[in-house]
Formats: sequence, structure tokens, C-alpha cells
Amino acid sequence: MNPVVPRPFRAPRRTLPKSVTLAHGGGGSAMRDLIDEVFIDTFNATGGAPEDQARFDLAGLMAKGDRLAFTTDGFVVDPLFFPGGDIGKLAVCGTINDLAVGAARPVALSCAVIIEEGLPLDTLWAVARSMADTAHAAGVPIVTGDTKVVARGACDKLFITTTGIGVIRAGMEVGIGRARPGDVVLVNGQLGDHGAAILNARGDLALDAEIRSDCAALHDLIDTLVTAAPGVRTLRDATRGGVAAVLNELASASGVGVCIRELDTPIRSDVQGFCEILGLDPLYLANEGKIVAIVPPEQAEAALRALRGHPLGRDAAKIGTVTDGRPGRVVMETRFGGERIVDMLVGDQLPRIC
Amino acid sequence: MNPVVPRPFRAPRRTLPKSVTLAHGGGGSAMRDLIDEVFIDTFNATGGAPEDQARFDLAGLMAKGDRLAFTTDGFVVDPLFFPGGDIGKLAVCGTINDLAVGAARPVALSCAVIIEEGLPLDTLWAVARSMADTAHAAGVPIVTGDTKVVARGACDKLFITTTGIGVIRAGMEVGIGRARPGDVVLVNGQLGDHGAAILNARGDLALDAEIRSDCAALHDLIDTLVTAAPGVRTLRDATRGGVAAVLNELASASGVGVCIRELDTPIRSDVQGFCEILGLDPLYLANEGKIVAIVPPEQAEAALRALRGHPLGRDAAKIGTVTDGRPGRVVMETRFGGERIVDMLVGDQLPRIC
Repeated sequence: MNPVVPRPFRAPRRTLPKSVTLAHGGGGSAMRDLIDEVFIDTFNATGGAPEDQARFDLAGLMAKGDRLAFTTDGFVVDPLFFPGGDIGKLAVCGTINDLAVGAARPVALSCAVIIEEGLPLDTLWAVARSMADTAHAAGVPIVTGDTKVVARGACDKLFITTTGIGVIRAGMEVGIGRARPGDVVLVNGQLGDHGAAILNARGDLALDAEIRSDCAALHDLIDTLVTAAPGVRTLRDATRGGVAAVLNELASASGVGVCIRELDTPIRSDVQGFCEILGLDPLYLANEGKIVAIVPPEQAEAALRALRGHPLGRDAAKIGTVTDGRPGRVVMETRFGGERIVDMLVGDQLPRIC
Repeated sequence: MNPVVPRPFRAPRRTLPKSVTLAHGGGGSAMRDLIDEVFIDTFNATGGAPEDQARFDLAGLMAKGDRLAFTTDGFVVDPLFFPGGDIGKLAVCGTINDLAVGAARPVALSCAVIIEEGLPLDTLWAVARSMADTAHAAGVPIVTGDTKVVARGACDKLFITTTGIGVIRAGMEVGIGRARPGDVVLVNGQLGDHGAAILNARGDLALDAEIRSDCAALHDLIDTLVTAAPGVRTLRDATRGGVAAVLNELASASGVGVCIRELDTPIRSDVQGFCEILGLDPLYLANEGKIVAIVPPEQAEAALRALRGHPLGRDAAKIGTVTDGRPGRVVMETRFGGERIVDMLVGDQLPRIC
């Protein structure tokens, strides 16, 4: 186990105590101080200059595409910090990815936090700083937000909800119901890292592995992909429920079968080993930096090349094909030449994975 | 005390148990069922047809104004149901109002919920139904959302974050820093109802009063107001921290003084009595259906008439004026002819008021 320590962030401390109190959620000057010092000052660095209500020139947005995309996601991951990321990085990347898989270019994010009384200010600062760093690196500013504080025991440390707006490229149409028999199933790298990293970081297992989350903002990778393969049918980030959930939704929504090959499915050996010890299936583990892309066969080569040419897609692979047999079913050709059904799980293997 | 019972909502029950389980947050078919049955079916009635990523034609938005507004708010109110509203109604009205006070016409909302394992499905249904009813009545669809479930004890029943997009009328400029000496301070009715209703609904006091929250969507009222008084300088909903917090922010941001008259400030006698018993000041109590409007003196009459002609502004009043003396200060002329400073509180009188 490598516990992840929040990076200390040396911000000017003017008026804040060492931990969050209920007064910080009350609408008075304590709340104003908390918001100003922790969030506004930090998020300013993303180019956001956050305010109660953010504003965008509509003519400027129209120059980027023809449709506005709008999506939201809550983050309750436990623990807050884990190898490869933290709840703040996850909250920024997750919503950027939700925009990007709809073929939208992300424009801006909002951030609403619910904080448990007693949360150390250093923790809150580290999360805010991580959000700001991630948003800045992604070129997507955090432009507005909200802060609530609840009494000790009324929430577990910190929850974050981010909402994103983006602009969809003119003419681009992707969707979960657009797959056709003969299409190729691509992923941009090893599967299951995030789920394994979180479970390992919880430390109940005292395994010695260091497994890092794949948490990353994928909008630039997707931009590269859709430029190389403009006929892409479906893009989906394989978060809760993993690649198995995405492929089952796809099979059901498109009325097609999906056949994947175990030998072609990239999984790190440490994640594979970890799953074997615990009896988990990596196909169902959450990813936070992996997409499933369904592309028509004639663009599959170009798509794979584009993915592999991007830093976040070096280990991209073709893992299977869309078929016309058994609509709604996902099957895997096992490494021993057999076949098994990859079913939709009822629940998940792990709660609070994101 | 009149306990508020969630209205039973007779939806078709296909696959759901009586309460929410961790599996409902896991990304598998249980989550899909919960989302489909509780949220999608219910929110469809708002005209939203919710999906992972909602889309809007930018040309259509430009027909409504020149700027996009974007704002977010988390809701953690305790109890979930109270006289005059519930967390769902509050989450819809609150974000509509945040858009409207920026002179934006609300276009759509997103809804991210965090649910405690064990929450009765009937409660969730009642909240979703209330959100749908409120959004439908307001003409603002709920178009996208997210659901997370955390273990028992990791959150208190249910938290909701709504985010809104809207379009700002061309040429309209309102802001907290735009007040000028001589301007008139208006409110659209009695102050403090929401804060008093929540505190009373918690039932610790066993008072016999029935105080109802003023929770309401104010975009139509504001539309009426800005049509009658297009020179309006500032609009602000007086939520956490009440009218006192708004006026202090205004005085500070605009570099002006504000003088209000106690005799002109509308407060219901039961709220006044409740505050006297508890030693609270109604000026600091949260409202969820009240705005402060700062208008230039020559438009004050028209503004007041417009407010009073609207069902949500019948008891509108001029409560004071903006002055050039004592910049940054809010003073109240008391009913006895004296004067007292209305200061910014450090915290709030009540946690989890919204």
C-alpha cells in the first residue's frame, strides 16, 4: 500500500481555520471567505474567474459548432486520494469525458461541493488545487460553483458534482444506438485500472501492488480520433460497470451482437493478477481514462493508428467486432478457444468507485 | 407541527424494491432500472426526455438572446419535506432563480442526486415527482442527470445538485456592483418565510404555528419586472443569509450605503412572532421565493406596480434606498425612529436551510 498524501498547497491564508465549520456553509462572511480563498483564487488559474452566474457569448460558441452539449456527474469516490488521482481530478476529467464522448468540445465546467463539517482545510485545498490543475491542463475553465457544508456525520468528507457545457462539431453524430454489424470495437488502452486502484487504495486487502488509476481527460484523444475516423458510430467512456456495461448497452440499443476476443483485450498483468486473487472480472471494473469506440470497418485502421499516436492511446487495441448474430448479446472468445456470455451485472463489484 | 407527508405517486412498479440499495449506484442493470423508472419516466413529463448528454441547437438559443448563462447549486435541506415545498421543488426553483436574477431566461436544468442506501423508494419517487411538477409548471425541462448511491451513514438521505443554462436578453445588464445613490430597494413580498418554515418543520420547538416556505420559481415575475423597469440595476434572490446578506454584498460591491426602514419591510406576523421567541432576526432568514431588486428612482413606481400585479409579488414593497453616505454599510431605521447597523453575519442562523 502506498497511501497518497495530498500535495501541500501554499496558498495565502488570511482568515480560515484549520478545518471546515458549519458557518462556512451559512451564507455569511465565513462562507464568502471559504469560497474566495479556496475556490475562487484557485479556479482563477483555470481562466475561469468563477462567479455566481457564468456567461458566454452565444456567437462565440456558434463559431465552434452547431449544438450545445450539457451533462452532469456526481463524484463520491472513497478514498478522496488514490494512486493516479483524487476526487477533484476525477470530477474534472469525468465531466470532460462525458462531453467528449458526445463529440462535443468542452467549453466550461461548474463545480458544486458538499463538505462534511470538520474536513481539514488542507484536504479541501489539495482537492481544489487538483481540480484547477486538471482543468487548466485540459484547457477547460471552471467558471461557477456552489458550496454547502453539512454537520459531521451527514456526509462522508466531500462530494463534488461537476456539470459541463460543450459545443458539438457540426455534422458529427455519435450514439449508443448507431452500431452496425461489421463495425469494429476499439479501446484506447488497458482496462480496469481505475477500479483496481480504488479497491487497492482502500487498503482492506494489504496487497503489495501499486496500481494507478487511469483517470485522464480524453477530449484531445477523441478529437484526434474523430478527425482520423469521422464515420465513428459510438464513443462511450467505460466508467461504472466497465467495458462490459458499455458493450451490453450498445448491443441492446443498437440491436446487434458484440463479440470480443479475450486475447486481444489489453489488461495489465498486475490488474489481471489482482482480479484473479479477488475473483473480480476486469471487464466490469471502472475505467476513468478509457473509451470504447465503435467504428465502421473501412475506418478501423485509421482510427487505431490515430489512437496509438496519442499519449493516452498508446496501447489502443481492436478488441472485437459488432455482429448480426444474437442481438443484444455480448460474447467473449476466451483464451482457450471457448466462448462465454458477458452479461450485464445487476449491481457493481464496488461501491463509490467514482 | 404539521408533518408533511410525501404525496404518493402511482407509477408503474416493475423491478424496484422498497428502498434504494448500493446496487442502484453501481452502473449495472439495477441502476438503469432506478434511473429509468424513477427519473427518466418522471422527468419526461417536463418535456426533457433526459439522456446522458442533452443537446440544444445553438441557433435556436441565439433567437432568445445573445449570451448563455450557466449556474449550479447544491441542495442539502433537512428535512426533505416541509410546509410549502421539499428538496426537489427547492432544487428546481433555486437554480431557475439563480438564472433569472442574472436576467437570463431559463432553458433547461440538469439534476445529479446522491442517495443514501436505504432511502425508501417512495421518498425518492415523491421528490422526483415534485421536481418534475415544478419544472413542468415553470416550463423549464430537466434534460440530463446522474445518480450515485452511498452506504448507509455516508450521506443524510438525499442531496441534489441542479445546474441550469439560460439565455440572457440582449442588452440587459444587471449586477451586484451596479447600484447608485438614489436607487430604490424593492422586495417582492414577506421576508423570512423559508428559514422560519424549515426551522419550524424540524420540530425541535414544538411550536403550534404553521409557517410555509415561500419556495417558488421567480423567472416569470422577473420577466414582468424587467419589462416594466428595463433600467433595473441589480436582481438577487435572498436565499442563505437573507436580505441582510444581499444588501451587505450590494453595499460592498457597489461602494454605496443602503438605508432600509423597518416599518416598510414586510414580514408576516407569525414569522415575526416566531423570530421574537427564538431571538432570530428575520432579515437574516433565508427566502426561496423572494428577490431584492435595485431600480433607478424614475422606474421605481413602474417596477413596484409590475411586481404587485404578479401573483408572486402581491405584497411587494419599497423597503429602502441606496445612499452615498457610509459606503459599504447597511442601516435600518427602526420602528421607534432609531437606527441600527444591519451587519454581515459570519455564519448563518441555521445550517442546511437549502
